[in-house]
Amino acid sequence: MGMEILCCDLEGVFVPEIWINVAEATGIDDLRLTTRDVPDYDELMAYRLRILDEHGLGIAEISQVISTLRPLDGAVEFLRWAQDHFQVVILSDTFYDFAAPLMAQLGQPMLLCHNLVINDAGRITGYRLRLDDQKRRGVEAFRSLNFSVFAVGDSYNDTAMLVAADQGFLFNPPAKVAEQFPQLPTVTSYDDLREHLTAASSRVLV
Amino acid sequence: MGMEILCCDLEGVFVPEIWINVAEATGIDDLRLTTRDVPDYDELMAYRLRILDEHGLGIAEISQVISTLRPLDGAVEFLRWAQDHFQVVILSDTFYDFAAPLMAQLGQPMLLCHNLVINDAGRITGYRLRLDDQKRRGVEAFRSLNFSVFAVGDSYNDTAMLVAADQGFLFNPPAKVAEQFPQLPTVTSYDDLREHLTAASSRVLV
Repeated sequence: MGMEILCCDLEGVFVPEIWINVAEATGIDDLRLTTRDVPDYDELMAYRLRILDEHGLGIAEISQVISTLRPLDGAVEFLRWAQDHFQVVILSDTFYDFAAPLMAQLGQPMLLCHNLVINDAGRITGYRLRLDDQKRRGVEAFRSLNFSVFAVGDSYNDTAMLVAADQGFLFNPPAKVAEQFPQLPTVTSYDDLREHLTAASSRVLV
Repeated sequence: MGMEILCCDLEGVFVPEIWINVAEATGIDDLRLTTRDVPDYDELMAYRLRILDEHGLGIAEISQVISTLRPLDGAVEFLRWAQDHFQVVILSDTFYDFAAPLMAQLGQPMLLCHNLVINDAGRITGYRLRLDDQKRRGVEAFRSLNFSVFAVGDSYNDTAMLVAADQGFLFNPPAKVAEQFPQLPTVTSYDDLREHLTAASSRVLV
């Protein structure tokens, strides 16, 4: 154990993509849209919440779907290894209300993300981003507390965090992201990530 | 789950006092000295490390003693409850090298603390404080990331963190500390703490 923090993205690294799985489980194809289809995040979220509403899906129904999801194969074992060697924190742009059942399956690592706004009837009426660019600012906060920071993510919204870390790693990223950030090593499995982290750490891991 | 972080001291809140237990297990009374006896922390630590050395005790022997310690009664259950409702981080002035076996028993919550300097023979040759006033600065970092912060501690070295939090709580503190910080509610059990946190939280906890 040392003065090293490992900041990890959640979806695509430890658990499946939540919206895509909600779309599949509910059969609502419109929920498969991502920022690739609707570049403006506010517009995309407003659209998603309207779709949920039209189908009468509130937080209870969504949580029910999410509770059927499982961490990716090997995620729990990797996380256990990582927690033996680093202080681990999850930096995600998901919402606490969605992530809760998945975090319980991961053994409740610390999660920094955002909140939904849910009314008394359980309807999702909006969302509240805790902070702009929270992943990068999270890494910077831990560095300001005199930690070395490693970071792992898979997508565009992770790159600012990965670049801000002492060492960032791309985990199974889309080819375009890997091409655009050649300075970030790409890893393709938890074993691969474990090896890279071991080499990057200032300490000898056993 | 919401945008609330709970920062907790370790020794006296979740686990027994480490140095006192090392003194008891080894029968070395000199290791019972605290900052009350030797006010200068550097002087105290230099003394402790010299005593360990004189008795031929390195990190392996100390870790062996610490591995026999158990979390305080009810600590694991409280922590599990807390992790269902808050993001929990331990802010402690202990050393990672000492805390490791105890953190494993607590389910590996994130721990921000300090490091010992250990040579190849396993002798503890020094220590490295990660940051001055790290508890207060940890709370301030989380507040700067737009979290509400609750904090729990039992002693003088916690008060800056407790005062910096949105709401701090003293957990079974010495009478003098409670008298000196009347603005901090004192709690005397995990049930008591749970009730106070529930009342303080902006959300309705179930």
